[in-house]
Amino acid sequence: MNALYYEGQRSFQIKETEKSALGKGEVRLKMAYVGVCGTDVHIYHGNMDTRIKIPQVIGHEVSGVVEELGEDVTGWKIGDRVTVRPLYPGVESPIDNGFKHIGQNLKFIGIDTPGGMQEYWNVPSFTLHHLPDNLSLKLGAMIEPLAVACHDVRLGEVKSGEYAVVIGGGPIGLLIALVARQKGANVLISEVNKSRLAFIKSLGFECVNPIEADLVKSVADFTKGAMADVVFEVSGVQAGVSVMTDLPRVRGRIVMVAIHAEQKSVDLFRFFWREIKLIGARVYEPEDFEEAIELAASGNLPLEEMITQVSLLADAEEVFKTIDSNPAGMKYLLEI
Amino acid sequence: MNALYYEGQRSFQIKETEKSALGKGEVRLKMAYVGVCGTDVHIYHGNMDTRIKIPQVIGHEVSGVVEELGEDVTGWKIGDRVTVRPLYPGVESPIDNGFKHIGQNLKFIGIDTPGGMQEYWNVPSFTLHHLPDNLSLKLGAMIEPLAVACHDVRLGEVKSGEYAVVIGGGPIGLLIALVARQKGANVLISEVNKSRLAFIKSLGFECVNPIEADLVKSVADFTKGAMADVVFEVSGVQAGVSVMTDLPRVRGRIVMVAIHAEQKSVDLFRFFWREIKLIGARVYEPEDFEEAIELAASGNLPLEEMITQVSLLADAEEVFKTIDSNPAGMKYLLEI
Repeated sequence: MNALYYEGQRSFQIKETEKSALGKGEVRLKMAYVGVCGTDVHIYHGNMDTRIKIPQVIGHEVSGVVEELGEDVTGWKIGDRVTVRPLYPGVESPIDNGFKHIGQNLKFIGIDTPGGMQEYWNVPSFTLHHLPDNLSLKLGAMIEPLAVACHDVRLGEVKSGEYAVVIGGGPIGLLIALVARQKGANVLISEVNKSRLAFIKSLGFECVNPIEADLVKSVADFTKGAMADVVFEVSGVQAGVSVMTDLPRVRGRIVMVAIHAEQKSVDLFRFFWREIKLIGARVYEPEDFEEAIELAASGNLPLEEMITQVSLLADAEEVFKTIDSNPAGMKYLLEI
Repeated sequence: MNALYYEGQRSFQIKETEKSALGKGEVRLKMAYVGVCGTDVHIYHGNMDTRIKIPQVIGHEVSGVVEELGEDVTGWKIGDRVTVRPLYPGVESPIDNGFKHIGQNLKFIGIDTPGGMQEYWNVPSFTLHHLPDNLSLKLGAMIEPLAVACHDVRLGEVKSGEYAVVIGGGPIGLLIALVARQKGANVLISEVNKSRLAFIKSLGFECVNPIEADLVKSVADFTKGAMADVVFEVSGVQAGVSVMTDLPRVRGRIVMVAIHAEQKSVDLFRFFWREIKLIGARVYEPEDFEEAIELAASGNLPLEEMITQVSLLADAEEVFKTIDSNPAGMKYLLEI
């Protein structure tokens, strides 16, 4: 079978390998589609070489079909169409507070262990979620990022009729906006890339380019002076952090979605003054996957439109180059 | 009657004045005790001269007795022993989200309007809370800061059996610790002043001087490796902000009590990684005053021990000087 190996230094190589032995409790999947995540791009850039075991197969936004069942696997049958929740909880720590999805000893499948960019992939059966018949395998590869958005919106406690602002209109920001809109929220997206802005606008969202317009004033206008009930910081940059505290009304919430590798300067006074909440949100819990699958299967989200390009596994290195040179792109899928 | 006027440039002056006319809905109080708040010290330092109308009577941590009722006042009678919730809600703004205690047009009585450091003081009757017979007028002047602590602990959702860490063991930090302990939390206080540490220790609290010991390790030991369920940042300094994100366990909360006039460097990654919440908390709502009065009347809190000194109104300027030169002091009261 073919597998795509990350070889370090922005390079990938397809290798012909043997299927690995199927362990107890594991299921062998025949892979269908794998999406390229921002984290995969980080890996490609060499930023995670201390965590990755080069050469390693990566990829964790997947769809596939059950090909073979390992010992002790129940509840699944050959031919089942599935996606994978790529979290392998480790030994529980008291710090975890019972939350397995972000436990101290969690392994992220596809980063800390081999990923899905290969013809056949063995995963623990507890990571699987059924894809319903009316959901294509192509959109099945969108479930993982959509589950991130469902988690963020759930932790942000978005309610119908509320005003939501999303800072950063990349794939995750846009998915958050879509899920929040589905909950009945009025959503405004702040994004600096003009092509992305045009695309987001075509999906019916209120958009602001904060380089060209005053975002605070725009949010005041959009909310008729009430300001935002909830803000999602997805930009990951100081400018986003600087403006995020200016947007919520009294007791508003800010959901911290972005990964801020460096410390940022934050207006803590505003948290005090308006009794704002900052809510950290990371990955997903099983119910977020179930919600994402239901939403995707409903056909109400423009997920097809978000797929910028579908390429063959053999062209993966080219795809990563394209992503680097085209910041306006949304979702890139590999067909396995 | 005598009234103490802040005259700017660290000076106060006692003046003999007329009682002011009693307005509709107002009550005239014969003042008993007024506590000196950190905000009053800020005013004394000249830091709030743009907000204060010099010369102005200040003071908002008070107890007194109803002396006279204005027109349309119901529910109160002459001789009632009371404290004042010094918030005057202004015209409601959509930003307020229905929260009158921190509305955009709120006036803080004793800062934005004349305060209680005078023999007779007129306040709107809606600001009054009854002091029960078993609560002294002296402790009545402690209700306002205790209500701040009740509000912080309530917004921090402190539950019995939880581990709480208070960063900063001044009057408000200590009151928060006392209220949290009353809720059944196990409380550790971080404080750098040695005299304060000794006093806090005498009240039975676990204490850490973060200059001499590793606070993160101390919290790990104290919580048997679980880390904190809730952290109160009351220090107002970068060192407190830098360590606050290291202390909570997964889904732990940080309550932002301190006033950070300048932006601070914050580890936003940790909010994401452990799904931590930051919760801004400011002043109080009526229920916090009711809880504070009940707690104080229960006799279970060492409020008497927290009173460093009781002085006469005429000695107020001396008291402010003493506060500046004695960072170990806790609560200073003026007897009117």
